[in-house]
Amino acid sequence: VTEIGLQQAASFIQDHDAFTILVHVRPDGDAVGAALSCAHILQYYGKPFRLIHEAPIPGKYQFLPLCDRFEVIEQNMPIADTVIALDCGDDRQLGKGIESISDKTHVLNIDHHRTNPGFGTHNFVDATAAATCQLMYRLAKQLQIPFNKDLATCIYTGLLFDTGGFRYSNTTEEVHKIAAEMIQYGVEPYDISDRILETVTWSQVQLIKCCLDTLKRDATGKLAWIAATHDMMERTQARDEECEGLVNYARNLEGVEVGVFFREVVGGKIKVSLRSKYYIDVSRIAAAFQGGGHARAAGCTIEGTLNDVMTRVLQLVQRQLSAKD
Amino acid sequence: VTEIGLQQAASFIQDHDAFTILVHVRPDGDAVGAALSCAHILQYYGKPFRLIHEAPIPGKYQFLPLCDRFEVIEQNMPIADTVIALDCGDDRQLGKGIESISDKTHVLNIDHHRTNPGFGTHNFVDATAAATCQLMYRLAKQLQIPFNKDLATCIYTGLLFDTGGFRYSNTTEEVHKIAAEMIQYGVEPYDISDRILETVTWSQVQLIKCCLDTLKRDATGKLAWIAATHDMMERTQARDEECEGLVNYARNLEGVEVGVFFREVVGGKIKVSLRSKYYIDVSRIAAAFQGGGHARAAGCTIEGTLNDVMTRVLQLVQRQLSAKD
Repeated sequence: VTEIGLQQAASFIQDHDAFTILVHVRPDGDAVGAALSCAHILQYYGKPFRLIHEAPIPGKYQFLPLCDRFEVIEQNMPIADTVIALDCGDDRQLGKGIESISDKTHVLNIDHHRTNPGFGTHNFVDATAAATCQLMYRLAKQLQIPFNKDLATCIYTGLLFDTGGFRYSNTTEEVHKIAAEMIQYGVEPYDISDRILETVTWSQVQLIKCCLDTLKRDATGKLAWIAATHDMMERTQARDEECEGLVNYARNLEGVEVGVFFREVVGGKIKVSLRSKYYIDVSRIAAAFQGGGHARAAGCTIEGTLNDVMTRVLQLVQRQLSAKD
Repeated sequence: VTEIGLQQAASFIQDHDAFTILVHVRPDGDAVGAALSCAHILQYYGKPFRLIHEAPIPGKYQFLPLCDRFEVIEQNMPIADTVIALDCGDDRQLGKGIESISDKTHVLNIDHHRTNPGFGTHNFVDATAAATCQLMYRLAKQLQIPFNKDLATCIYTGLLFDTGGFRYSNTTEEVHKIAAEMIQYGVEPYDISDRILETVTWSQVQLIKCCLDTLKRDATGKLAWIAATHDMMERTQARDEECEGLVNYARNLEGVEVGVFFREVVGGKIKVSLRSKYYIDVSRIAAAFQGGGHARAAGCTIEGTLNDVMTRVLQLVQRQLSAKD
C-alpha cells in the first residue's frame, strides 16, 4: 500500500488530465459533498471530469452545486484512465463503479475510514479526519483554489453530515474552524442543515410511529430496544435507508446505556444495530454474532426469528450491563 | 435606556463586590450556561456571588460545573445590591427573581433578545449575538479571564442550545470560531450534545407516539399538523416542556412549508405553534389570533375546542399558501 501525503495528492490532480469521480454505493452527504468538491476543483483547473454512479443520487443532495453532472450508468461502466474514489472504505464500496477500473487505471483513493485497505494506486487516507470533505478542504487549500460559496457548500455538507450536525465525538476544533471559514464564503448553515438533517419523508414518520409501539426497556432502565418487522416496512412503504436513526429512539432515552434496533430483512435474517452511551463496548456484543463496528456503534446480522434473535442479543447485553454493576 | 458596551460591562463586574445572578423562568441551556459562565468569571476574581432561582434547574443541566451552587428560593427573594440578569428578554422573565431588585439595586442586564427593553441600570444587549453565552465569551475575553474546561463547557452549552446544535440561521462564523476555541480548552462536544440535545424522557417518547397518530397533511402536501390533547398529556404524564419540538414532526416533512402544533391547555384554550420553511410569514398568522413571533416560528393561544381552533387556523394558513401559488 502506497500512502501519500497532501502534497502528492495535490500533484496527482495537477499531473493528470481527465478524471472519473466515483463515490460509495448508497452515497451520503460526505460522499456527495466530497465528489462535488472534487468536481469544483477540477472545474477550476479546466480539467474534464465525469461523475458516474450506478444509481441516481438521493433527491436531498440535488441542491448541491454540480450535482446535475452525475450520470447514472447501470450497466457497462466505461473504463477510465484516471479515477478519484471518494469516501470509499474499500473497493467493494464502489459497487459497479469498480468496473471502470482496469489494471492500467490510476486511482487516487481519498478517504477517512480507519479500515481502508489502500485499494488505489495512490492512497490519501487519514482516519483522524471527521469527513472526507475535511480532506477535500485541505486539498483545495494545498492547491490554492479560490473558495466560493459553491465549493464551500459542498465541503460544509460533508462535515455536517459525518459529524451528525457537529454532535459526534469526531467534532474537533478543526471541524468548527473549517465550518466558520465556509460560512465566511457564503454558506447558509440553516438551509443546508434543514435539507440534510431535518427533512423526513411521510413514510419515515409512519415507520417511526409503528416502531415506537415496539419500544421497550428492561427493569433497570439501562437497556432499551425497538424493532421493525417486514409488515411495518410494507405497510409504511419505507425504504431500508429510512430506518436510519430509529435506534436512537431507544439509545437516547434518559438513563439508557445501550439501545438496540432489530429489523427483519430478507432470507429469514435479523439486522441488529447497537448503540451505547458511556461504558459498554457494543462492538464486542456484535462480534459475538460475527458483526463489527465501534465501541459506541456496532451491528450484526443474525439468522433466526425476530423473537429468537431479540432474546439472544438482549440477554448478552444484559450480561454485559450486570458485569459493570 | 442606557446601553453599554463591552468595556463598560467589564467595568461593572470589576467595580462591584458581591453579586446575585438571575436567569429567566424555565431556564434553558443558554440561560444556565450564561449564569454559570458568569459564576466562573466572578469566582476567578474571588468575588462572592449567589445563583438564585424560583425553581430547581432542570436535571439535564446539573452536569454543568457550579450548577450545584444554584439555590432554590420559592418565597421571599433576598433583596440584592448588585444583580446580573442573564438571557432575560424583559423583567417579567425574571419571575420571582424580580423581587430581589429594589430601586437601589444595580442591575447589569446581559441579553441577546431583540425585544429587550433595557430593564437594567446597565444594559449590555446585542441582538446580533446567537446566544447570551456569546456575550459571556466576549466579556470573559475583555476581562482576560484564563479559559479552562469548566468555563468553556458553560459557553459551548449556550451556543449549542440557542443555535439548535449549529443548525439555525443564527449559526454565524463567530459561533463556529468560538466553538472551535472552546474545544481547544477541553470541551467534549459529544458529551454535551448528548446531554443537551439528544436525551429524551420515557414520557416524551410516549407523547411523540400518541401525537404521531394525529399527524396529518393537506392535499397539497404543503401544510401538516399534529396535536396533543389533555388526555394524551395525562396518559403519558408528559410535562408541558416535553411538547417542545413536536411541531417539527409536521414542519420537517418533505414538501411541507408550514407545520402546526395544537395543544389543549387549561381554561378551554388551545396553544398553537407555527413553523415555516421558506416563504410563509407565520408571525402574520399568529398575529391574526393576538399571538406573535418571527417569520419562521410563531405562536398564539386561542379560546375554543381543539376541532374548532384547528379549523380556523388551518383555513388561514391554507389561504396564505394559496395566495403564494
